Amino acid sequence: MEIGKRQDSTTDVILVFTPWDAPQWWMKYMATTHPSIEVRWVNSTAPDRSLKRPEDTPLEIWDGVTILCTYEPPPAHLLRSVRFVQLTSAGSDMWVGHPTFEDEKVVFCTSNGIQPPQIAEWVIGSWLSFSHHFAKYAQDMKTGTWEAYNDSPVTDSLGARMGILGYGAIGRQCAKLGQALGMEIFAYTRTEKATPASRRDNGYNIPGTGDPEGVIPAKWFHGTSKETINDFLSQGFDILVLCLPLTSETRNLLSAEQFALLSRKKTFVSNVSRGPLIDQKALIDALTSGQIRGAALDVADPEPLPADHPLWKAPNLLITPHVSWKSVEYWTRLLDLFGKNLERMTEGKPLLNSINRKLK
Amino acid sequence: MEIGKRQDSTTDVILVFTPWDAPQWWMKYMATTHPSIEVRWVNSTAPDRSLKRPEDTPLEIWDGVTILCTYEPPPAHLLRSVRFVQLTSAGSDMWVGHPTFEDEKVVFCTSNGIQPPQIAEWVIGSWLSFSHHFAKYAQDMKTGTWEAYNDSPVTDSLGARMGILGYGAIGRQCAKLGQALGMEIFAYTRTEKATPASRRDNGYNIPGTGDPEGVIPAKWFHGTSKETINDFLSQGFDILVLCLPLTSETRNLLSAEQFALLSRKKTFVSNVSRGPLIDQKALIDALTSGQIRGAALDVADPEPLPADHPLWKAPNLLITPHVSWKSVEYWTRLLDLFGKNLERMTEGKPLLNSINRKLK
Repeated sequence: MEIGKRQDSTTDVILVFTPWDAPQWWMKYMATTHPSIEVRWVNSTAPDRSLKRPEDTPLEIWDGVTILCTYEPPPAHLLRSVRFVQLTSAGSDMWVGHPTFEDEKVVFCTSNGIQPPQIAEWVIGSWLSFSHHFAKYAQDMKTGTWEAYNDSPVTDSLGARMGILGYGAIGRQCAKLGQALGMEIFAYTRTEKATPASRRDNGYNIPGTGDPEGVIPAKWFHGTSKETINDFLSQGFDILVLCLPLTSETRNLLSAEQFALLSRKKTFVSNVSRGPLIDQKALIDALTSGQIRGAALDVADPEPLPADHPLWKAPNLLITPHVSWKSVEYWTRLLDLFGKNLERMTEGKPLLNSINRKLK
Repeated sequence: MEIGKRQDSTTDVILVFTPWDAPQWWMKYMATTHPSIEVRWVNSTAPDRSLKRPEDTPLEIWDGVTILCTYEPPPAHLLRSVRFVQLTSAGSDMWVGHPTFEDEKVVFCTSNGIQPPQIAEWVIGSWLSFSHHFAKYAQDMKTGTWEAYNDSPVTDSLGARMGILGYGAIGRQCAKLGQALGMEIFAYTRTEKATPASRRDNGYNIPGTGDPEGVIPAKWFHGTSKETINDFLSQGFDILVLCLPLTSETRNLLSAEQFALLSRKKTFVSNVSRGPLIDQKALIDALTSGQIRGAALDVADPEPLPADHPLWKAPNLLITPHVSWKSVEYWTRLLDLFGKNLERMTEGKPLLNSINRKLK
C-alpha cells in the first residue's frame, strides 16, 4: 500500500464519482489547464435513480486514481494511490474511521463555501416564514379565511440578535443576511479569534458572499467546554443558528440544560448542520412547553426521520429533508472550487478547505 | 371654514386618533419638546375591538384640532382648523376626494419609512419560502414524509434579478435585502432619477435601513406610460416587487399583456401595495397556466377577499390579509416620525413624507 503517495512524479489520475454528468465547459477547462491529468468522470446514478456503490463499478475506473472527487467513502482498497480527496459535502463525518481518512498524508478537502448562498437563504427564509406566520396564512387560504393573527404580533428583525454557532462559510453568509435585516450578530468559534488575521476565512468563498474578513460580528465567543457554550447561549438570542461540524465535542450540544438557557429569550433554533447536534427529545419538550418560540431543522437523527417519529408533530417547527444545500448552481460552484484546488496543488500551495483530522 | 389656517399664531392642538394607547415616553417627549402644544390622545378601539368612527366620538375632542394623526378620513366638518395630517399609513388613496385632502394648504404626510423593515422581510421571506418549497415541506410533515422535491430544483438568489416598481422607502429596503442575497436590482420610478440628488430618499428613513442615497440599483427606469412599464417588465426579472401607490395611473398596472411579458422569465410577482394594481383575473390565469412561477400578495381586491373568491385557489400563491406592515415596533417608529415632523414644523422646514396631491 502506498496511500498518500502519487503513482509517479508526472501523472495524476482524477476520478469524479458523483451522481451527475460532466459539464463540457469543465472538461475543456481541464484539458486546457491541466493537460497532463487524466480525468475519469463516472456518473454514479444507477438506472433506477439510486446511487451505485463504488464496489459495484468496474474495478479499472479506480485503478491508479490519485485524486478523487466524491461524497461517500469507497472501500479503502480502491483508494491505494489516492493523495487528495475533494468531498462534495461540507461535512466529513461519514469518513471518520476510514483508513484513507485516518492517513494524514492524504489531503481531504470539504466543499465548504459552495453552499452558503442557498443554506443561508434556507435559514433566513425559514426564520422570516416563522416570524411572519406564513404557514398559518397558507393554511387559512384553504378555507378562504382573511384574518390577521393579531394575538401573535410580528416582531421584525431590526435590532434582533442572532447567535451563530460555528462561524465558517455558512455562518458568515447567515451573518451577512442577518446584518442586512438589521440584526446584531454574535459569533462562536472553537478556537479564539482575537486578531483580524485569525478572523479571516481562508477557505473557498464565492465573491460577494459571506464575511471573508470576519468584520460583521459585534462580539466573538470561543471555547470547547460546556461552560463556554452555555455562556454563549445565555446572550439573549432571538435566533440561534447551528452551522458547525458533528464531532464528539458537538454531539448533543443542545440538550435540556441548553434549552433552559435559551428559554430566557425563547430563542428560535435553526439547525443546518447535523441532526445529532441536538437532543431531539429535549427539543420536542422545549417546543411543546414553549421554552423556545420555534425551530427549523434541515437535519434529523436518524435520516430519513421515520414517519411515526414524534418530532414531526412538535409545534412551531419546520422540518425539511436535508435539502438546504441543494441549488441548481451546486455542481458549477463545486467544480470551480475543485479547479482552484487543482491549480493550488500544481503551484504547491495549501489547498482550500483542507480538513483538520484531529477533530473527530 | 378656515381649512389649512391655524387657530391662532401660538397654539397647536394635536389629536392622535388611533387604535392604541399613548406611550408614556412620547407624552413626556411632547411635554418637554413642545410644551405649548396641547396633545389629545384618543384610543379609537371600541369595546368590541372594532374601530370607533370619528363621528361617534365626543365632538369636543375635535374642537380646535390643528394637527391630526390618524388613518381613515374623518368627516371634513371635524377638521376645520387642521393644517397638518400625519397619516399612520403609507398609502393615502382612502383620502382621495375628501375636502381636506383636496385643500393643498393642508399638509398631508404619509408614514413612509416606518414599514420598510417588516414589509421587506415579508417580501424576501415569501420569496425564499416559495423558492425553497417550505409550504410543500410543511404539508409533508403532516404525513411524516421525508422526501426532497428533486424535480423542482431550488435556484438560489445569487445572481438573480429583482425588479422594483416604485423605488420608495419600501422598495429601497427590498433592494438592500436583495443585494445581500446577491441579486441584481433594477428600479422603476415615475419620474426620471438621472442625478445623485434625485436618487436620494428625502423621506423618513430608519438609520441603517434602505438605500437612502439610491446607490443599489444597477439600472434605473422611469415613466408613466404603458410602454415604459412594459419595457421594464421585459428585463428578465426573477422577482418583481410592486411597492408603489394606487393612483389612476397605476390601477390595473399588471394585466394579461404584462403577464405575457413576465412569462419569458416566469417572474415571481410580489404585491405589498394595493390589490387593484393587479387585474386579479389575469393573475389567476397567469398562475394557472404557469406563465409566472408564483406570487405573493399581501393585498387583494376587494379586502377582505370573499371566502369563495377563486384567487384563494390559484396555484403557487401565498395570500396574507394585509398584514405585512404590522410590527410591534410600528407605533414607536410612527411616533418618532411624527415627532421629527413636529420639530420640522416648528423650525419652518419642509415636512418628511409630504404628499404630492397632484397624483390621484
